[in-house]
Amino acid sequence: MSTGSVGIVKTHHFTFAEPPSEMKLESGQKLGPITLAYETYGELNKEKDNAILIFHALSGDAHAAGKHTAEDKKVGWWDSMIGPGKGFNTDKYFVICANVIGGCKGSTGPASVNPKTGKPYGTDFPVITIRDMVRSQKCLIDHLGVSQLLAVTGGSMGGMQSLEWAVCFPGTVRSVILFATAACQSPQNIALQEVGRKAIINDPNWHGGHYYGKGSPAHGLAVARMLGHISYLSDVSMGQKFGRRLQGKEKYSFDFSPEFQVESYLHHQGDAFTRRFDANSYLYITRAIDYFDMSDGGKTLADRFKDVHSKFLVISFSTDWLYPPYQSEEIVRALKANSIDVTYNNINSSFGHDAFLVDDKKLAPIVGTFLSHVVKKK
Amino acid sequence: MSTGSVGIVKTHHFTFAEPPSEMKLESGQKLGPITLAYETYGELNKEKDNAILIFHALSGDAHAAGKHTAEDKKVGWWDSMIGPGKGFNTDKYFVICANVIGGCKGSTGPASVNPKTGKPYGTDFPVITIRDMVRSQKCLIDHLGVSQLLAVTGGSMGGMQSLEWAVCFPGTVRSVILFATAACQSPQNIALQEVGRKAIINDPNWHGGHYYGKGSPAHGLAVARMLGHISYLSDVSMGQKFGRRLQGKEKYSFDFSPEFQVESYLHHQGDAFTRRFDANSYLYITRAIDYFDMSDGGKTLADRFKDVHSKFLVISFSTDWLYPPYQSEEIVRALKANSIDVTYNNINSSFGHDAFLVDDKKLAPIVGTFLSHVVKKK
Repeated sequence: MSTGSVGIVKTHHFTFAEPPSEMKLESGQKLGPITLAYETYGELNKEKDNAILIFHALSGDAHAAGKHTAEDKKVGWWDSMIGPGKGFNTDKYFVICANVIGGCKGSTGPASVNPKTGKPYGTDFPVITIRDMVRSQKCLIDHLGVSQLLAVTGGSMGGMQSLEWAVCFPGTVRSVILFATAACQSPQNIALQEVGRKAIINDPNWHGGHYYGKGSPAHGLAVARMLGHISYLSDVSMGQKFGRRLQGKEKYSFDFSPEFQVESYLHHQGDAFTRRFDANSYLYITRAIDYFDMSDGGKTLADRFKDVHSKFLVISFSTDWLYPPYQSEEIVRALKANSIDVTYNNINSSFGHDAFLVDDKKLAPIVGTFLSHVVKKK
Repeated sequence: MSTGSVGIVKTHHFTFAEPPSEMKLESGQKLGPITLAYETYGELNKEKDNAILIFHALSGDAHAAGKHTAEDKKVGWWDSMIGPGKGFNTDKYFVICANVIGGCKGSTGPASVNPKTGKPYGTDFPVITIRDMVRSQKCLIDHLGVSQLLAVTGGSMGGMQSLEWAVCFPGTVRSVILFATAACQSPQNIALQEVGRKAIINDPNWHGGHYYGKGSPAHGLAVARMLGHISYLSDVSMGQKFGRRLQGKEKYSFDFSPEFQVESYLHHQGDAFTRRFDANSYLYITRAIDYFDMSDGGKTLADRFKDVHSKFLVISFSTDWLYPPYQSEEIVRALKANSIDVTYNNINSSFGHDAFLVDDKKLAPIVGTFLSHVVKKK
């Protein structure tokens, strides 16, 4: 099986929910107009039954594969899994990925212009939830003329959106592929995200969320990202990647500059993130994740799955401490309680939570085989 | 076995290393005069062979047991383990605990007056190491007329000091009791601490470390402490303690105020810490921990133990992800490679790293029995 690239791709924009027909959010607030930035890879077939909707995680965007120009140094965030002959094989499937609402990569978010004021929303942007993200993307799928999805899939927050989709629109989705996710955000993860939010909100350049045009809370966002990065790796992978090696020196400097490679790496990751991500989007998206709880409102997780008939593939990673395997196992048990067809793989990997993004050698064949079975089963 | 309190205690102060006889630090810099704040519980016996030196962890101090006044609401940080009939039984043993250098609870640290300028050191305070802490406490033990310690002990950074003592002064210590510690700081832990330091250093009120008399970087220190707290608990204990329960409300507010109890708890812990701890001490002490590596300088851990003849008790906790059990096991293996008498207990506990401070029901009998054997063996 040869694998290739999707090549040069373009981001499209779809605008809907124009006032007065704004979208009503889970909070009760309304949002509109809404623009979704999205990309597609591969071709929708005549039967319109080969579409796969991919959801990105916290810091992702619509640019999941390929390059925007031949000169781009980086490819899309899941390029290793999307392309001809890859796990999500674009020779066979039509892959769609949109930036979430609340984001800062072309979809409507806190940095977008508030039609009521003509200025960026800032913290006047309404708080959104995973369900709001999913409902907005249903409008995009309708717009694209796709009434049935071969699969919805994603890792981390992308997995949460996949679960929510399966439950909100059970008739539209033949299969669900979950990576490194959970049916509810754990208190430990709420806590970790609150530390990041606190760092942003404490930054004097945050200005109550109305900082556009006058700088940005880059210091706070960098701290949030540094912490995020630690949670995406593992004790083992940090040992392998950095150990206690010093950064550009052979002896301790005995000061507070970065002594160790791991410090230098985190500083770099934090700084780089502030150049590509909006701090308010970080607040809104982490908040949406915190609110995610499939068994909210007095229902058990198994209750929530009772109208679901999709086939499931659930994948967790042995060293993922952000969304540990036991949280995937909870999903699997609730699916089985409803006699839903589910395949579970806990993959032995040292990469921690990031494994869903980097362990493509292990993931591609599992995903490819699963999708072939879904296609055949029709 | 009845257990009681050590009652009302007093903090003492011992000053040494007066210029020109300053203490030479591991960095090559000199420090002096040095004051150590310390407390003692129980009585030194005639034979002077019943003294136990306890080392505190990152945010601890000399006040390990009892109260300073009858009105105190809180007891010392390890009161559950120190007292008549307790794990460190003050009916039998003479217990000593001193605040580390670099600290802010009576021992010389960055908030102390720099004799060269007459002003607080701030970041002119020299960077210190675990070995420097231990060497300064050796001066205190000499001053107290104790030439042999029945035991050195501590959890977390306290365990690191215990290990360092055992190696630096092998003839002075009959036993070593380690709780939730490691022979070197892992890259993951360096990374976590660097996030906290970055939050402090980013705080505009840090002023390059010279903030005394003009406020303090309380926001940054609170963020550091919030993150610290998460690392002291466990996924399990946070689930048990907070779950996803809301704070004083029945429905989501859909905003960025604390929605969940776990957020509210962390905010409280962060704020409270800023009223009792100096941000620069946080920087210096975390840095000292980062530098800790017993197998530094081309020696293996087993090499470092070759002159050690103390009896060891090593205790780890199943859900401690800050200093996981495998790190204690590395110590145990290196001790056994030297035929050193070592007892290892990995205690099943949901409390994470904090277990050494709160799981006293499990710890007291293990420690009590171990110490009795050490006494008998003489």
